[in-house]
Amino acid sequence: MSANPTACLLIIGNEVLSGRTRDANLQFLATRLGEIGIPLREVRVIPDVPEVIVETVNAVRPRFDHVFTTGGIGPTHDDITAECIARAFGVPWEKHPEAMALLTAHYEKQGTEFNAARQRMATVPRGATLIPNPVSVAPGFTIGNVHVMAGVPRIMQAMFEALAPGLAGGRPVLSRSVHADGIYEGQIAEGLGAIQARHPALDIGSYPYYRPDRSGVALVAKGVEEAEVTAAAAEMAALIRQVGKEPAEGEPG
Amino acid sequence: MSANPTACLLIIGNEVLSGRTRDANLQFLATRLGEIGIPLREVRVIPDVPEVIVETVNAVRPRFDHVFTTGGIGPTHDDITAECIARAFGVPWEKHPEAMALLTAHYEKQGTEFNAARQRMATVPRGATLIPNPVSVAPGFTIGNVHVMAGVPRIMQAMFEALAPGLAGGRPVLSRSVHADGIYEGQIAEGLGAIQARHPALDIGSYPYYRPDRSGVALVAKGVEEAEVTAAAAEMAALIRQVGKEPAEGEPG
Repeated sequence: MSANPTACLLIIGNEVLSGRTRDANLQFLATRLGEIGIPLREVRVIPDVPEVIVETVNAVRPRFDHVFTTGGIGPTHDDITAECIARAFGVPWEKHPEAMALLTAHYEKQGTEFNAARQRMATVPRGATLIPNPVSVAPGFTIGNVHVMAGVPRIMQAMFEALAPGLAGGRPVLSRSVHADGIYEGQIAEGLGAIQARHPALDIGSYPYYRPDRSGVALVAKGVEEAEVTAAAAEMAALIRQVGKEPAEGEPG
Repeated sequence: MSANPTACLLIIGNEVLSGRTRDANLQFLATRLGEIGIPLREVRVIPDVPEVIVETVNAVRPRFDHVFTTGGIGPTHDDITAECIARAFGVPWEKHPEAMALLTAHYEKQGTEFNAARQRMATVPRGATLIPNPVSVAPGFTIGNVHVMAGVPRIMQAMFEALAPGLAGGRPVLSRSVHADGIYEGQIAEGLGAIQARHPALDIGSYPYYRPDRSGVALVAKGVEEAEVTAAAAEMAALIRQVGKEPAEGEPG
C-alpha cells in the first residue's frame, strides 16, 4: 500500500472534544478514501483555537499527500477554519467573487439578508478553488493539498463526492475477512503473526467481537493485490480450522 | 477553563483508520473527562506503526497533563502499544509480576494454556502501575502521565472508571443549551459573537440541527463558573427572542 497517496483528516470543533457531538465523518471518509486508493493514515480532532488550527495544518500538510478538514466554515464566531487556513498558508483571507455571486443569488431568492456573518462563508484564502455544495450552497475550498469541507455530515459527503473524481487516487484498498464464533485471540495469535510475516505488504488484523448470543474473532486482510489478499484469507481460514472451528466468510453479522 | 488540567486521547488502530470499526471511545471519554474537570483538548487516531506511536506519544505527553490511549493491548502481532510506550519512555518492556500472577490464575481457572501470545498482555514498560480490568482480567497501565487502556469499549470504560478516582481533576465543565426551531445561524451570528466577547472565559458554540420534521439551531455555553454559564444562557435565550422565536431549554430532542 506504500505506493498509494496518503490522507490525513482534521476534525475541527469544540463540540466533538466536549462530547456534545458524536463525529460521523471519520468512518465515511476512511471508507471512501480507501475505496479511491488514498488511505487515511492519521486523524486529529482539534479545538476552535486559531493557533492550534494553524500549527496543526502546517504540521500535517507536508507529511501527507492530502489533508481533509471538516467543520468550522459556517457564519458564526466559532467558524474560523477558513481564516486559519489562510494564516497557515500565509495568504490573505478575502471574499471570493464566485462564492459571493452564488450566495448573493441564493439569499436573494430566499428574500433573506446577505449580512456580514453570511458573507464570511464566501471569504476564503487567496488562491483557493471552490468545492461545490449542492446541499446548502455555501462552498468548501481547496488550497494546495488541503481540502476544507463542512462539518454537517450530509453536506460534507456531498462536498467529498464533488471533490473525489478530481483527486489522483491510487489502487483501491481491498479487504477480505473470515471469522468464527467461539475462538479467542490467544489461540490464533502465533499463527496470525506468521501470516503477517509471510505477507508484509498486507495489513493483517484481528478483532474480537462480543454479541449478546455469541462472541469470537474476525480476521481481516487488507491490501491492493487481490491475489495476495485472497491467499492470506485462505491461510486465515486454515488457521481457524487448526483450532477446531469452521471459518465463515466476511464479517460477523 | 484554562486552570483545569488538560487531556489528550490517542486512538491506536488501523481498524479505525480503514473505516472497518467506528470508534466508540472518543465520545465517552470526552464526556467523562469534562465531568471530572480534565477537558479533552486533542484526539489523534494513529495506525499500528511503531515509529508513529512512539513519535506521537512523545509529541503529546509534554503538552498535556494526561494522555489516554485506547487499543493495541491484546495478544496478537498488531497489539504493539505497550512495547511502543516502553520505547517512548526509554525503559525496558518486561513481564509485570502482578499481571503475570493475575493472568496465570485466570487461565488456570479456565483450563486454558497461558501461552507466549497471552503473556504479552502481562508485559508492560518498567515502572508502570497496573489499571485493573474487571471485565476480562488483562490489565491496562499508567506510566508517567500516560494511561494505556483497551480498545473494546466496555473494557475501556471499566478501566477508566477504575482510574478516574485517582486522577487529580479540576472543576467540572458545566454546559447550558437553548435552541429554537426555524432559526438560522446567519440571523444570530452577530449577537452570538457579542455574547462570546462578553464572556471570554466561556466556550460559546452554535450548532445547526436537521430533523426530518424540523430544523433550527442549538446554542451552547460551557464553562466552570455556574453563574456565568447561566447568565450566558439567558443572553442566548434573549437573542433567540430578538429574531422572533421562542427559545427552548436544553438540546433539541
